[in-house]
Amino acid sequence: MKHLLLTLAVGATVMASPLAKQAKGVGLVAIPADQKEVMKLIDNPNNRLTPEKIELGKKLYFDPRLSKSGLISCNFCHNLGEGGDDGVSAAIGHGWTANPHHLNSPTVYNAVFAQKQFWDGRSPDLEDQAKGPALAPPEMAATEVHIEKVVNSMPEYVAEFKKAYGKDAKIDFTSITDTIGLFERTLVTPSRFDDFLNGDEKALTSAEQAGLKTFIDTGCATCHTGIAVGGGMQGFALTAPYKYAKVGDFKGDANGLVKTPSLRNITETAPYFHNGAIWSLKEAIVEMGRIQLGVNVSDKDAASIETFLKALDGRKPKVDFPMLPASTDSTPKPNVN
Amino acid sequence: MKHLLLTLAVGATVMASPLAKQAKGVGLVAIPADQKEVMKLIDNPNNRLTPEKIELGKKLYFDPRLSKSGLISCNFCHNLGEGGDDGVSAAIGHGWTANPHHLNSPTVYNAVFAQKQFWDGRSPDLEDQAKGPALAPPEMAATEVHIEKVVNSMPEYVAEFKKAYGKDAKIDFTSITDTIGLFERTLVTPSRFDDFLNGDEKALTSAEQAGLKTFIDTGCATCHTGIAVGGGMQGFALTAPYKYAKVGDFKGDANGLVKTPSLRNITETAPYFHNGAIWSLKEAIVEMGRIQLGVNVSDKDAASIETFLKALDGRKPKVDFPMLPASTDSTPKPNVN
Repeated sequence: MKHLLLTLAVGATVMASPLAKQAKGVGLVAIPADQKEVMKLIDNPNNRLTPEKIELGKKLYFDPRLSKSGLISCNFCHNLGEGGDDGVSAAIGHGWTANPHHLNSPTVYNAVFAQKQFWDGRSPDLEDQAKGPALAPPEMAATEVHIEKVVNSMPEYVAEFKKAYGKDAKIDFTSITDTIGLFERTLVTPSRFDDFLNGDEKALTSAEQAGLKTFIDTGCATCHTGIAVGGGMQGFALTAPYKYAKVGDFKGDANGLVKTPSLRNITETAPYFHNGAIWSLKEAIVEMGRIQLGVNVSDKDAASIETFLKALDGRKPKVDFPMLPASTDSTPKPNVN
Repeated sequence: MKHLLLTLAVGATVMASPLAKQAKGVGLVAIPADQKEVMKLIDNPNNRLTPEKIELGKKLYFDPRLSKSGLISCNFCHNLGEGGDDGVSAAIGHGWTANPHHLNSPTVYNAVFAQKQFWDGRSPDLEDQAKGPALAPPEMAATEVHIEKVVNSMPEYVAEFKKAYGKDAKIDFTSITDTIGLFERTLVTPSRFDDFLNGDEKALTSAEQAGLKTFIDTGCATCHTGIAVGGGMQGFALTAPYKYAKVGDFKGDANGLVKTPSLRNITETAPYFHNGAIWSLKEAIVEMGRIQLGVNVSDKDAASIETFLKALDGRKPKVDFPMLPASTDSTPKPNVN
């Protein structure tokens, strides 16, 4: 019955809301209201999502013992309580080392919808991405062997791997990071914007609808499009030099392309830009207009766009904080040096 | 009905279990099975526990923005998923600075039952304790003003303080750390040992019961007593010098007294001793016997005591990982330097 009503509502809106139609016309896509449809979008066909894998992946995501120091979990830089990132300009990792390129930690929420991972798009998916920070010396600073030894040293983890993957489960670096990636796939946050596109016209206030229109008309949706409202690779500083270009030395991928960040939950993911140099959302909007679109976004338009962007704040999945297995005598000792 | 059965069981056991009687006789105390009794023990008469205060305190406990860097929450060193501590020898804080006295982070679980807080017992309760790490330069490195500005900058926090303390709620350093302390009071983990003392004779295996007897007969319960199975102030290295005395420079309080750690969840809180110098529980047991009791604990007795101690692993309260309020333009920027 609920489903039927929803279908009717969607049907009604396609006709009733030219704005939703316009948004879809420029490539904006809603997170489906139907959980089964969401599951189809986020699943990994080669390693299907199951509750056991997700629960195990969550534990590994929160386990600082995977790092060399025993102090830095995935959640340290991608804090699920803090919009899925760390709120600092450049990521801080092992030994309090800042990211050598002064790169800002992107949010893990809705990262599953991005076409590529990392600012230079060098990774195709979350499973692959998870390997990077684990081994990077200025991040978790671990080795594959360290991580494999840690996980294999705890009978509870071994049992959970068997529960998730069968009794012959291989517990190695790849299966560990794959499982973390699977958990991350589930971190999807539908918002009032999605409700609007899915047919609930009242989900956005008239000011937010006006902001959406300004967002589209200004050209923001050229890059901030698709279900991620971003997530593709784009040229950077196309129409003017970025005013904080000298913060860090990141130049994009081999072709100078930079990943467009998702705008979902943008109010929680300051500071902005690849080098985290801009703290104000409004300033970020104006700077984007200037360097990507060659547009002088007026104060009024920037405020209107900001009003819309706030409607992208999503409903977070509930996370039971995982109680991790106890270390054993064979668990590698942390090394903070 | 359930309550009646329990009462009968308790009644039956007092007569049936000489071991439980012996344990109580040397001062060991169970966490009550009745939640109302637990509440009486953990409540703060001057600032009564309410669900609103606990929920708010949990958010503050998990919020890294209270620290100077924006990266170190209370949970960083007292990780609720990791036995309530950090699993490293000496605490690591702001700027990756190790505790200057090489002191090990104690667990926050059941800390409410300790007579004093900190290794030198300088703090009377959790509310007072919470002020320390927040301001300590090698820990969260914040100032009172920073913390007050952070919390007051977020309307959601302000609203939650009003919900918890009334519309005239004062949001200052003291009320913030008090609220964190209140949340910490709820971190109580009843174990099978408590079930045993509360009348369920089968809650401990015969090997664990034998271990409890060895524990008592060896003299461990002289200091590891009360509901915390520790938590009081005692002389240290009474019968022989501690073999890792040179790790750090901690000498106890003005009288040389050192806080006896709780043994609850001891399997999750390695490394052991105030300076985190011993990683093996068995080695810790033997060293304690040697330096505190002048007893050469045999391998067999150490193994037996260890078997009992494992039964102190408690049932953790379920923690919904808190989704924190978004920073605003007036939230102080993190400073990682």
